[in-house]
Amino acid sequence: MFKPPSNLSSAQTSHSSAGLSARLMCRSGQYTETSAGLAPGLVQGNLVILPESFAHDFLRFCIANPKPCPVLGVTDVGSPMLPALGQDLDVRTDLPRYRVWRDGHLVAEPTDIRALWREDLVGFVLGCSFSFEAALQDHGLALRHIECGRTVAMFRTALACTPVGPFAGPMVVSMRPFSPADAIRAIQITSRFPAVHGAPVHFGDPSLIGIKSLDQPDYGEPIPVADGEVPVFWACGVTPQAVVEAARLPFAITHAPGAMLVTDLSNHRLAVF
Amino acid sequence: MFKPPSNLSSAQTSHSSAGLSARLMCRSGQYTETSAGLAPGLVQGNLVILPESFAHDFLRFCIANPKPCPVLGVTDVGSPMLPALGQDLDVRTDLPRYRVWRDGHLVAEPTDIRALWREDLVGFVLGCSFSFEAALQDHGLALRHIECGRTVAMFRTALACTPVGPFAGPMVVSMRPFSPADAIRAIQITSRFPAVHGAPVHFGDPSLIGIKSLDQPDYGEPIPVADGEVPVFWACGVTPQAVVEAARLPFAITHAPGAMLVTDLSNHRLAVF
Repeated sequence: MFKPPSNLSSAQTSHSSAGLSARLMCRSGQYTETSAGLAPGLVQGNLVILPESFAHDFLRFCIANPKPCPVLGVTDVGSPMLPALGQDLDVRTDLPRYRVWRDGHLVAEPTDIRALWREDLVGFVLGCSFSFEAALQDHGLALRHIECGRTVAMFRTALACTPVGPFAGPMVVSMRPFSPADAIRAIQITSRFPAVHGAPVHFGDPSLIGIKSLDQPDYGEPIPVADGEVPVFWACGVTPQAVVEAARLPFAITHAPGAMLVTDLSNHRLAVF
Repeated sequence: MFKPPSNLSSAQTSHSSAGLSARLMCRSGQYTETSAGLAPGLVQGNLVILPESFAHDFLRFCIANPKPCPVLGVTDVGSPMLPALGQDLDVRTDLPRYRVWRDGHLVAEPTDIRALWREDLVGFVLGCSFSFEAALQDHGLALRHIECGRTVAMFRTALACTPVGPFAGPMVVSMRPFSPADAIRAIQITSRFPAVHGAPVHFGDPSLIGIKSLDQPDYGEPIPVADGEVPVFWACGVTPQAVVEAARLPFAITHAPGAMLVTDLSNHRLAVF
Protein backbone atom coordinates (compact mmCIF):
# COMPACT_ATOMS: atom_id res chain seq x y z
CA MET A 1 0.00 0.00 0.00
CA PHE A 2 1.34 3.40 -0.97
CA LYS A 3 2.22 5.85 1.79
CA PRO A 4 3.00 9.44 0.80
CA PRO A 5 6.74 10.07 1.09
CA SER A 6 7.64 11.84 4.31
CA ASN A 7 9.46 14.54 2.37
CA LEU A 8 6.04 15.89 1.36
CA SER A 9 5.69 17.38 4.85
CA SER A 10 7.13 20.68 3.68
CA ALA A 11 7.37 22.31 0.32
CA GLN A 12 10.89 23.64 0.03
CA THR A 13 11.72 23.80 -3.63
CA SER A 14 13.57 26.09 -5.95
CA HIS A 15 10.45 26.32 -8.14
CA SER A 16 8.15 27.54 -5.40
CA SER A 17 7.80 31.02 -6.85
CA ALA A 18 6.60 29.55 -10.18
CA GLY A 19 3.95 27.52 -8.35
CA LEU A 20 2.79 30.48 -6.30
CA SER A 21 2.69 32.68 -9.40
CA ALA A 22 0.45 30.17 -11.18
CA ARG A 23 -1.87 29.95 -8.17
CA LEU A 24 -2.07 33.72 -7.79
CA MET A 25 -2.93 34.02 -11.49
CA CYS A 26 -5.83 31.61 -10.93
CA ARG A 27 -6.80 33.35 -7.69
CA SER A 28 -7.05 36.71 -9.46
CA GLY A 29 -9.59 35.25 -11.90
CA GLN A 30 -7.36 36.04 -14.87
CA TYR A 31 -6.73 32.38 -15.73
CA THR A 32 -9.62 29.92 -16.09
CA GLU A 33 -8.34 27.41 -18.68
CA THR A 34 -6.50 24.09 -18.45
CA SER A 35 -3.56 23.96 -16.08
CA ALA A 36 -1.60 21.86 -18.60
CA GLY A 37 1.66 23.65 -19.28
CA LEU A 38 1.46 25.92 -16.21
CA ALA A 39 4.65 25.88 -14.10
CA PRO A 40 6.47 23.05 -15.92
CA GLY A 41 8.26 20.60 -13.62
CA LEU A 42 5.87 21.13 -10.71
CA VAL A 43 3.37 18.58 -9.44
CA GLN A 44 -0.28 19.24 -10.26
CA GLY A 45 -3.06 17.60 -8.31
CA ASN A 46 -6.68 16.57 -8.70
CA LEU A 47 -9.00 18.10 -6.08
CA VAL A 48 -11.94 16.59 -4.20
CA ILE A 49 -13.74 18.56 -1.45
CA LEU A 50 -16.28 16.76 0.73
CA PRO A 51 -18.19 17.34 3.98
CA GLU A 52 -16.39 15.97 7.03
CA SER A 53 -19.06 13.29 7.44
CA PHE A 54 -17.80 11.58 4.27
CA ALA A 55 -14.15 12.49 4.58
CA HIS A 56 -12.94 9.50 6.55
CA ASP A 57 -14.65 6.97 4.26
CA PHE A 58 -13.26 8.77 1.22
CA LEU A 59 -9.74 8.73 2.60
CA ARG A 60 -10.10 5.05 3.44
CA PHE A 61 -11.31 4.50 -0.14
CA CYS A 62 -8.18 6.23 -1.44
CA ILE A 63 -5.94 4.14 0.80
CA ALA A 64 -7.70 0.98 -0.40
CA ASN A 65 -7.27 2.05 -4.04
CA PRO A 66 -3.87 3.74 -4.16
CA LYS A 67 -3.25 3.37 -7.88
CA PRO A 68 -6.23 5.44 -9.07
CA CYS A 69 -6.39 7.57 -5.88
CA PRO A 70 -2.88 8.49 -4.66
CA VAL A 71 -3.26 11.02 -1.85
CA LEU A 72 -0.81 13.94 -1.91
CA GLY A 73 -2.42 16.02 0.83
CA VAL A 74 -5.52 16.52 2.98
CA THR A 75 -6.62 19.81 4.56
CA ASP A 76 -7.60 20.22 8.20
CA VAL A 77 -11.39 20.20 8.64
CA GLY A 78 -12.72 23.62 7.68
CA SER A 79 -9.35 24.90 6.48
CA PRO A 80 -8.82 25.65 2.78
CA MET A 81 -5.05 25.95 3.23
CA LEU A 82 -2.54 23.19 2.47
CA PRO A 83 0.93 24.52 3.34
CA ALA A 84 2.57 21.11 2.91
CA LEU A 85 1.89 21.34 -0.82
CA GLY A 86 2.58 25.01 -1.44
CA GLN A 87 3.20 28.48 -0.07
CA ASP A 88 -0.06 30.30 0.74
CA LEU A 89 -1.95 27.51 -1.09
CA ASP A 90 -5.75 28.01 -0.85
CA VAL A 91 -7.90 25.31 -2.46
CA ARG A 92 -10.88 27.72 -2.71
CA THR A 93 -9.23 30.06 -5.22
CA ASP A 94 -6.05 28.57 -6.62
CA LEU A 95 -7.47 26.32 -9.33
CA PRO A 96 -8.55 27.67 -12.74
CA ARG A 97 -12.07 26.22 -12.49
CA TYR A 98 -14.20 23.96 -10.26
CA ARG A 99 -17.23 21.69 -10.51
CA VAL A 100 -19.94 21.80 -7.83
CA TRP A 101 -22.02 18.68 -7.28
CA ARG A 102 -25.34 18.33 -5.40
CA ASP A 103 -26.91 14.89 -5.01
CA GLY A 104 -24.64 13.63 -7.78
CA HIS A 105 -25.64 16.34 -10.24
CA LEU A 106 -23.28 18.91 -11.68
CA VAL A 107 -24.80 22.26 -10.73
CA ALA A 108 -22.11 24.86 -11.41
CA GLU A 109 -18.59 25.42 -12.81
CA PRO A 110 -17.28 28.44 -10.91
CA THR A 111 -13.74 29.79 -11.01
CA ASP A 112 -13.72 30.47 -7.24
CA ILE A 113 -15.50 28.65 -4.38
CA ARG A 114 -15.02 31.05 -1.49
CA ALA A 115 -18.77 31.67 -1.33
CA LEU A 116 -19.40 27.92 -1.04
CA TRP A 117 -16.82 27.18 1.65
CA ARG A 118 -18.09 25.73 4.93
CA GLU A 119 -16.55 24.93 8.29
CA ASP A 120 -17.18 21.20 7.78
CA LEU A 121 -15.38 20.81 4.43
CA VAL A 122 -12.23 18.77 3.84
CA GLY A 123 -10.06 19.06 0.73
CA PHE A 124 -8.14 16.16 -0.79
CA VAL A 125 -5.37 16.64 -3.36
CA LEU A 126 -4.65 13.52 -5.39
CA GLY A 127 -1.76 12.80 -7.74
CA CYS A 128 -2.30 13.32 -11.46
CA SER A 129 -0.76 11.82 -14.57
CA PHE A 130 0.89 15.08 -15.65
CA SER A 131 3.82 14.26 -13.35
CA PHE A 132 4.50 10.82 -14.79
CA GLU A 133 3.97 12.12 -18.32
CA ALA A 134 6.68 14.71 -17.64
CA ALA A 135 8.96 11.91 -16.46
CA LEU A 136 8.25 9.85 -19.60
CA GLN A 137 9.02 12.85 -21.80
CA ASP A 138 12.18 13.66 -19.82
CA HIS A 139 13.33 10.13 -20.69
CA GLY A 140 12.69 10.71 -24.40
CA LEU A 141 9.42 8.80 -24.75
CA ALA A 142 6.89 10.52 -27.04
CA LEU A 143 3.26 10.73 -25.91
CA ARG A 144 0.92 10.17 -28.83
CA HIS A 145 -1.99 12.20 -27.46
CA ILE A 146 0.28 15.20 -27.03
CA GLU A 147 1.71 14.71 -30.53
CA CYS A 148 -1.89 14.64 -31.81
CA GLY A 149 -2.98 17.64 -29.71
CA ARG A 150 -5.72 15.57 -28.07
CA THR A 151 -6.89 14.77 -24.57
CA VAL A 152 -5.69 11.32 -23.51
CA ALA A 153 -8.21 8.49 -24.07
CA MET A 154 -9.81 7.23 -20.83
CA PHE A 155 -11.97 4.16 -20.30
CA ARG A 156 -14.16 2.68 -17.59
CA THR A 157 -12.92 -0.86 -16.99
CA ALA A 158 -14.22 -4.09 -15.51
CA LEU A 159 -11.63 -3.69 -12.73
CA ALA A 160 -13.67 -2.89 -9.61
CA CYS A 161 -12.27 -0.53 -7.00
CA THR A 162 -12.32 -1.85 -3.44
CA PRO A 163 -15.53 -0.24 -2.08
CA VAL A 164 -15.56 1.73 1.20
CA GLY A 165 -18.77 3.20 2.61
CA PRO A 166 -20.64 5.02 -0.17
CA PHE A 167 -17.60 5.02 -2.45
CA ALA A 168 -17.47 2.31 -5.12
CA GLY A 169 -17.22 1.85 -8.83
CA PRO A 170 -14.99 0.77 -11.69
CA MET A 171 -11.41 1.86 -12.11
CA VAL A 172 -11.01 4.37 -14.92
CA VAL A 173 -7.78 4.05 -16.91
CA SER A 174 -5.92 6.22 -19.39
CA MET A 175 -4.28 4.69 -22.45
CA ARG A 176 -0.98 5.57 -24.09
CA PRO A 177 0.44 3.49 -26.99
CA PHE A 178 4.11 2.48 -27.11
CA SER A 179 6.36 0.00 -28.87
CA PRO A 180 7.04 -2.97 -26.56
CA ALA A 181 10.59 -1.76 -25.81
CA ASP A 182 9.30 1.72 -24.93
CA ALA A 183 6.46 0.18 -22.91
CA ILE A 184 9.01 -1.71 -20.79
CA ARG A 185 10.89 1.56 -20.22
CA ALA A 186 7.60 3.34 -19.43
CA ILE A 187 6.78 0.68 -16.84
CA GLN A 188 10.19 1.19 -15.22
CA ILE A 189 9.88 4.98 -15.21
CA THR A 190 6.31 5.18 -13.89
CA SER A 191 7.06 2.55 -11.21
CA ARG A 192 9.18 5.25 -9.59
CA PHE A 193 6.11 7.47 -9.13
CA PRO A 194 3.50 5.69 -6.97
CA ALA A 195 2.26 9.12 -5.82
CA VAL A 196 1.00 9.78 -9.35
CA HIS A 197 -0.59 6.43 -10.30
CA GLY A 198 2.66 4.46 -10.55
CA ALA A 199 3.11 1.51 -12.91
CA PRO A 200 0.46 0.59 -15.47
CA VAL A 201 -2.33 -1.79 -14.50
CA HIS A 202 -2.58 -3.48 -17.90
CA PHE A 203 -1.23 -3.56 -21.44
CA GLY A 204 -2.28 -5.24 -24.66
CA ASP A 205 -5.73 -6.72 -25.27
CA PRO A 206 -8.24 -4.11 -24.01
CA SER A 207 -11.04 -6.68 -23.69
CA LEU A 208 -9.18 -8.41 -20.83
CA ILE A 209 -10.08 -5.42 -18.61
CA GLY A 210 -13.55 -4.91 -20.07
CA ILE A 211 -12.80 -2.25 -22.70
CA LYS A 212 -14.86 -2.96 -25.81
CA SER A 213 -13.26 -0.56 -28.27
CA LEU A 214 -10.26 1.74 -28.12
CA ASP A 215 -12.09 3.93 -30.66
CA GLN A 216 -14.79 4.82 -28.12
CA PRO A 217 -13.24 6.20 -24.94
CA ASP A 218 -15.56 7.06 -22.06
CA TYR A 219 -13.63 10.29 -21.45
CA GLY A 220 -11.17 12.22 -23.62
CA GLU A 221 -10.56 11.49 -27.27
CA PRO A 222 -9.59 8.37 -29.27
CA ILE A 223 -5.81 7.98 -29.66
CA PRO A 224 -4.41 5.95 -32.56
CA VAL A 225 -2.31 2.84 -31.84
CA ALA A 226 0.18 2.18 -34.66
CA ASP A 227 1.22 -1.21 -36.04
CA GLY A 228 3.79 -2.79 -33.74
CA GLU A 229 2.59 -0.76 -30.76
CA VAL A 230 0.63 -1.94 -27.74
CA PRO A 231 -1.86 0.09 -25.72
CA VAL A 232 -0.65 0.58 -22.14
CA PHE A 233 -3.20 1.40 -19.44
CA TRP A 234 -2.61 3.42 -16.26
CA ALA A 235 -5.02 3.95 -13.37
CA CYS A 236 -6.53 7.40 -13.87
CA GLY A 237 -7.47 10.26 -11.59
CA VAL A 238 -10.91 10.40 -13.17
CA THR A 239 -11.69 7.33 -11.03
CA PRO A 240 -12.23 9.25 -7.75
CA GLN A 241 -14.32 11.89 -9.54
CA ALA A 242 -16.54 9.23 -11.10
CA VAL A 243 -16.83 7.52 -7.71
CA VAL A 244 -17.77 10.76 -5.94
CA GLU A 245 -20.35 11.50 -8.64
CA ALA A 246 -21.82 8.00 -8.38
CA ALA A 247 -22.02 8.26 -4.56
CA ARG A 248 -24.61 11.07 -5.03
CA LEU A 249 -23.38 12.94 -1.99
CA PRO A 250 -25.53 15.93 -0.99
CA PHE A 251 -22.57 18.22 -1.64
CA ALA A 252 -19.13 17.93 -3.19
CA ILE A 253 -16.68 20.05 -5.16
CA THR A 254 -14.01 18.85 -7.55
CA HIS A 255 -11.64 20.50 -9.99
CA ALA A 256 -13.01 20.91 -13.52
CA PRO A 257 -11.46 18.46 -16.03
CA GLY A 258 -7.96 19.57 -16.95
CA ALA A 259 -8.03 22.46 -14.46
CA MET A 260 -5.80 21.10 -11.72
CA LEU A 261 -4.06 22.58 -8.68
CA VAL A 262 -0.44 23.63 -9.25
CA THR A 263 1.68 22.82 -6.17
CA ASP A 264 5.20 23.87 -5.20
CA LEU A 265 6.50 20.30 -5.30
CA SER A 266 8.97 19.31 -7.99
CA ASN A 267 7.90 16.25 -9.99
CA HIS A 268 11.34 14.82 -9.22
CA ARG A 269 10.55 14.89 -5.49
CA LEU A 270 7.86 12.24 -6.02
CA ALA A 271 10.33 9.62 -7.27
CA VAL A 272 10.69 6.81 -4.73
CA PHE A 273 14.08 5.71 -6.07
CA MET B 1 25.75 0.82 -19.03
CA PHE B 2 25.74 -1.72 -16.21
CA LYS B 3 28.62 -1.69 -13.77
CA PRO B 4 28.93 -4.60 -11.31
CA PRO B 5 27.96 -3.41 -7.84
CA SER B 6 30.97 -2.63 -5.68
CA ASN B 7 29.71 -4.98 -2.98
CA LEU B 8 30.75 -7.88 -5.25
CA SER B 9 34.37 -7.27 -4.26
CA SER B 10 34.17 -9.80 -1.47
CA ALA B 11 31.91 -12.71 -0.86
CA GLN B 12 30.77 -12.48 2.72
CA THR B 13 27.43 -14.27 2.98
CA SER B 14 25.73 -16.53 5.41
CA HIS B 15 25.25 -19.11 2.63
CA SER B 16 28.91 -19.43 1.77
CA SER B 17 29.21 -22.93 3.16
CA ALA B 18 26.36 -24.10 0.91
CA GLY B 19 28.12 -22.63 -2.13
CA LEU B 20 31.45 -24.21 -1.20
CA SER B 21 29.78 -27.55 -0.54
CA ALA B 22 28.20 -27.50 -4.01
CA ARG B 23 31.52 -26.61 -5.63
CA LEU B 24 33.40 -29.31 -3.71
CA MET B 25 30.80 -31.87 -4.78
CA CYS B 26 31.45 -30.90 -8.41
CA ARG B 27 35.21 -30.84 -7.82
CA SER B 28 35.18 -34.39 -6.48
CA GLY B 29 33.57 -35.62 -9.72
CA GLN B 30 30.53 -36.94 -7.83
CA TYR B 31 28.14 -34.45 -9.40
CA THR B 32 28.01 -33.91 -13.20
CA GLU B 33 24.38 -32.95 -13.85
CA THR B 34 22.53 -29.64 -14.06
CA SER B 35 23.28 -27.12 -11.36
CA ALA B 36 19.59 -26.13 -11.22
CA GLY B 37 18.43 -26.58 -7.64
CA LEU B 38 21.95 -26.68 -6.15
CA ALA B 39 22.41 -24.25 -3.23
CA PRO B 40 19.07 -22.42 -3.50
CA GLY B 41 19.32 -18.65 -3.01
CA LEU B 42 22.88 -18.40 -4.29
CA VAL B 43 23.91 -16.80 -7.57
CA GLN B 44 24.94 -19.16 -10.36
CA GLY B 45 27.00 -17.98 -13.28
CA ASN B 46 27.74 -18.84 -16.89
CA LEU B 47 31.43 -19.47 -17.61
CA VAL B 48 33.55 -18.47 -20.61
CA ILE B 49 37.31 -19.14 -20.66
CA LEU B 50 39.44 -17.62 -23.44
CA PRO B 51 43.10 -17.05 -24.24
CA GLU B 52 44.39 -13.68 -23.05
CA SER B 53 44.75 -12.51 -26.66
CA PHE B 54 40.93 -12.45 -26.97
CA ALA B 55 40.09 -11.51 -23.40
CA HIS B 56 40.06 -7.76 -23.75
CA ASP B 57 37.86 -7.79 -26.85
CA PHE B 58 35.47 -10.23 -25.16
CA LEU B 59 35.22 -8.07 -22.05
CA ARG B 60 34.59 -5.02 -24.24
CA PHE B 61 31.90 -7.02 -26.03
CA CYS B 62 30.25 -7.79 -22.69
CA ILE B 63 30.39 -4.14 -21.63
CA ALA B 64 28.86 -3.13 -24.97
CA ASN B 65 26.09 -5.73 -24.56
CA PRO B 66 25.31 -5.74 -20.83
CA LYS B 67 21.83 -7.24 -21.05
CA PRO B 68 22.86 -10.59 -22.59
CA CYS B 69 26.41 -10.49 -21.11
CA PRO B 70 26.38 -9.14 -17.54
CA VAL B 71 29.87 -9.65 -16.07
CA LEU B 72 29.99 -10.91 -12.48
CA GLY B 73 33.71 -11.59 -12.30
CA VAL B 74 36.93 -12.02 -14.30
CA THR B 75 39.98 -14.04 -13.23
CA ASP B 76 43.53 -12.77 -13.31
CA VAL B 77 45.39 -14.00 -16.41
CA GLY B 78 46.50 -17.58 -15.80
CA SER B 79 44.65 -17.88 -12.49
CA PRO B 80 41.67 -20.22 -12.16
CA MET B 81 40.66 -18.73 -8.81
CA LEU B 82 37.95 -16.10 -8.31
CA PRO B 83 37.83 -15.26 -4.59
CA ALA B 84 35.46 -12.32 -5.14
CA LEU B 85 32.73 -14.78 -6.10
CA GLY B 86 33.39 -17.59 -3.62
CA GLN B 87 35.65 -19.16 -1.07
CA ASP B 88 38.33 -21.36 -2.69
CA LEU B 89 36.48 -21.02 -6.00
CA ASP B 90 38.36 -22.76 -8.85
CA VAL B 91 36.81 -22.45 -12.32
CA ARG B 92 38.74 -25.54 -13.53
CA THR B 93 36.95 -27.99 -11.27
CA ASP B 94 33.93 -26.41 -9.62
CA LEU B 95 31.34 -26.74 -12.39
CA PRO B 96 29.50 -30.01 -13.05
CA ARG B 97 30.52 -30.16 -16.71
CA TYR B 98 32.32 -28.11 -19.37
CA ARG B 99 32.43 -27.74 -23.12
CA VAL B 100 35.76 -27.44 -24.95
CA TRP B 101 35.82 -25.64 -28.31
CA ARG B 102 38.56 -25.65 -30.95
CA ASP B 103 38.16 -23.48 -34.07
CA GLY B 104 34.46 -23.14 -33.27
CA HIS B 105 33.88 -26.89 -32.99
CA LEU B 106 32.76 -28.66 -29.83
CA VAL B 107 35.48 -31.24 -29.17
CA ALA B 108 34.85 -32.49 -25.62
CA GLU B 109 32.51 -32.28 -22.60
CA PRO B 110 34.77 -32.99 -19.62
CA THR B 111 33.83 -32.67 -15.96
CA ASP B 112 37.21 -31.15 -15.05
CA ILE B 113 39.55 -28.94 -17.11
CA ARG B 114 42.71 -28.99 -15.00
CA ALA B 115 44.57 -30.82 -17.76
CA LEU B 116 43.58 -28.12 -20.27
CA TRP B 117 44.51 -25.10 -18.15
CA ARG B 118 47.16 -22.74 -19.53
CA GLU B 119 49.03 -19.74 -18.20
CA ASP B 120 47.37 -17.47 -20.79
CA LEU B 121 43.72 -18.29 -19.98
CA VAL B 122 41.19 -15.86 -18.54
CA GLY B 123 37.87 -16.94 -17.01
CA PHE B 124 34.70 -14.82 -17.21
CA VAL B 125 31.67 -15.48 -15.02
CA LEU B 126 28.46 -13.97 -16.39
CA GLY B 127 25.08 -13.58 -14.69
CA CYS B 128 22.42 -16.19 -15.41
CA SER B 129 18.64 -16.14 -15.39
CA PHE B 130 18.37 -18.52 -12.40
CA SER B 131 18.79 -15.51 -10.08
CA PHE B 132 15.96 -13.47 -11.57
CA GLU B 133 13.76 -16.56 -11.82
CA ALA B 134 14.25 -17.06 -8.08
CA ALA B 135 13.22 -13.43 -7.52
CA LEU B 136 10.10 -13.88 -9.68
CA GLN B 137 9.16 -17.02 -7.73
CA ASP B 138 9.84 -15.30 -4.39
CA HIS B 139 7.27 -12.70 -5.48
CA GLY B 140 4.69 -15.40 -6.24
CA LEU B 141 4.95 -15.45 -10.03
CA ALA B 142 4.73 -18.94 -11.50
CA LEU B 143 7.19 -19.92 -14.25
CA ARG B 144 5.49 -21.99 -16.91
CA HIS B 145 8.60 -23.90 -18.03
CA ILE B 146 9.23 -25.01 -14.46
CA GLU B 147 5.55 -25.98 -14.03
CA CYS B 148 5.91 -28.03 -17.25
CA GLY B 149 9.26 -29.54 -16.22
CA ARG B 150 10.89 -28.19 -19.38
CA THR B 151 13.95 -26.15 -20.29
CA VAL B 152 12.99 -22.54 -21.00
CA ALA B 153 12.42 -21.72 -24.70
CA MET B 154 15.23 -19.67 -26.24
CA PHE B 155 15.33 -17.93 -29.61
CA ARG B 156 17.87 -16.22 -31.86
CA THR B 157 16.48 -12.78 -32.65
CA ALA B 158 16.95 -10.09 -35.28
CA LEU B 159 18.38 -7.88 -32.52
CA ALA B 160 22.10 -7.58 -33.33
CA CYS B 161 24.61 -7.36 -30.52
CA THR B 162 27.07 -4.48 -30.77
CA PRO B 163 30.11 -6.19 -32.37
CA VAL B 164 33.60 -5.89 -30.87
CA GLY B 165 36.64 -7.48 -32.56
CA PRO B 166 35.80 -11.07 -33.51
CA PHE B 167 32.69 -11.12 -31.30
CA ALA B 168 29.37 -10.50 -33.04
CA GLY B 169 26.00 -12.06 -33.60
CA PRO B 170 22.33 -11.94 -32.74
CA MET B 171 20.98 -11.55 -29.23
CA VAL B 172 19.48 -14.79 -27.96
CA VAL B 173 16.42 -14.37 -25.72
CA SER B 174 14.50 -16.62 -23.36
CA MET B 175 10.69 -16.50 -23.28
CA ARG B 176 8.37 -16.74 -20.28
CA PRO B 177 4.60 -16.22 -20.65
CA PHE B 178 2.63 -14.08 -18.16
CA SER B 179 -0.70 -12.32 -17.89
CA PRO B 180 -0.23 -8.59 -18.60
CA ALA B 181 -0.56 -7.71 -14.89
CA ASP B 182 2.05 -10.33 -13.96
CA ALA B 183 4.25 -9.19 -16.85
CA ILE B 184 4.25 -5.64 -15.45
CA ARG B 185 5.27 -7.04 -12.06
CA ALA B 186 7.93 -9.21 -13.70
CA ILE B 187 9.36 -6.14 -15.46
CA GLN B 188 9.55 -4.31 -12.13
CA ILE B 189 11.17 -7.25 -10.33
CA THR B 190 13.76 -8.08 -12.99
CA SER B 191 14.65 -4.38 -13.41
CA ARG B 192 16.21 -4.67 -9.95
CA PHE B 193 18.68 -7.27 -11.25
CA PRO B 194 20.82 -5.81 -14.06
CA ALA B 195 23.62 -8.21 -13.08
CA VAL B 196 21.46 -11.14 -14.26
CA HIS B 197 19.99 -9.76 -17.53
CA GLY B 198 17.70 -7.16 -15.94
CA ALA B 199 14.41 -6.08 -17.50
CA PRO B 200 12.99 -7.82 -20.56
CA VAL B 201 13.97 -6.63 -24.03
CA HIS B 202 10.56 -7.30 -25.64
CA PHE B 203 7.06 -8.63 -25.06
CA GLY B 204 4.16 -9.54 -27.30
CA ASP B 205 4.45 -10.12 -31.04
CA PRO B 206 7.53 -12.36 -31.53
CA SER B 207 7.88 -11.36 -35.20
CA LEU B 208 8.84 -7.81 -34.19
CA ILE B 209 12.21 -9.16 -33.00
CA GLY B 210 12.57 -11.69 -35.79
CA ILE B 211 11.15 -14.80 -34.11
CA LYS B 212 9.12 -16.77 -36.65
CA SER B 213 7.38 -19.27 -34.37
CA LEU B 214 7.22 -19.73 -30.61
CA ASP B 215 6.73 -23.44 -31.32
CA GLN B 216 10.24 -23.78 -32.72
CA PRO B 217 12.79 -22.47 -30.25
CA ASP B 218 16.45 -22.45 -31.29
CA TYR B 219 17.46 -23.77 -27.85
CA GLY B 220 15.46 -25.41 -25.07
CA GLU B 221 11.89 -26.62 -25.47
CA PRO B 222 8.62 -25.00 -26.65
CA ILE B 223 6.65 -23.45 -23.79
CA PRO B 224 2.88 -22.96 -24.13
CA VAL B 225 1.41 -19.44 -23.97
CA ALA B 226 -2.19 -19.50 -22.66
CA ASP B 227 -5.08 -17.33 -23.83
CA GLY B 228 -4.81 -13.90 -22.24
CA GLU B 229 -1.07 -14.26 -21.71
CA VAL B 230 1.74 -12.52 -23.54
CA PRO B 231 5.20 -13.90 -24.21
CA VAL B 232 7.89 -11.86 -22.43
CA PHE B 233 11.47 -12.01 -23.72
CA TRP B 234 14.65 -11.55 -21.69
CA ALA B 235 18.21 -11.31 -22.99
CA CYS B 236 19.78 -14.73 -22.45
CA GLY B 237 23.16 -15.99 -21.36
CA VAL B 238 23.28 -18.31 -24.36
CA THR B 239 24.15 -15.17 -26.36
CA PRO B 240 27.83 -15.03 -25.32
CA GLN B 241 28.22 -18.78 -25.88
CA ALA B 242 26.78 -18.50 -29.38
CA VAL B 243 29.02 -15.51 -30.07
CA VAL B 244 32.13 -17.36 -28.84
CA GLU B 245 31.21 -20.37 -30.96
CA ALA B 246 30.65 -18.19 -34.04
CA ALA B 247 33.98 -16.40 -33.52
CA ARG B 248 35.71 -19.75 -34.21
CA LEU B 249 38.51 -19.03 -31.76
CA PRO B 250 41.36 -21.53 -31.81
CA PHE B 251 40.54 -22.45 -28.20
CA ALA B 252 37.76 -21.72 -25.73
CA ILE B 253 36.03 -23.41 -22.82
CA THR B 254 32.47 -22.77 -21.59
CA HIS B 255 30.17 -24.40 -19.07
CA ALA B 256 27.96 -27.15 -20.48
CA PRO B 257 24.30 -26.08 -20.89
CA GLY B 258 22.58 -26.03 -17.49
CA ALA B 259 25.80 -26.86 -15.65
CA MET B 260 26.66 -23.49 -14.14
CA LEU B 261 29.08 -22.27 -11.49
CA VAL B 262 27.58 -21.94 -7.98
CA THR B 263 28.97 -18.85 -6.23
CA ASP B 264 28.80 -17.74 -2.60
CA LEU B 265 26.78 -14.61 -3.47
CA SER B 266 23.19 -14.36 -2.32
CA ASN B 267 20.74 -13.57 -5.13
CA HIS B 268 19.47 -10.74 -2.93
CA ARG B 269 22.90 -9.09 -3.02
CA LEU B 270 22.47 -8.47 -6.76
CA ALA B 271 19.42 -6.22 -6.33
CA VAL B 272 20.28 -2.62 -7.18
CA PHE B 273 17.37 -1.19 -5.17
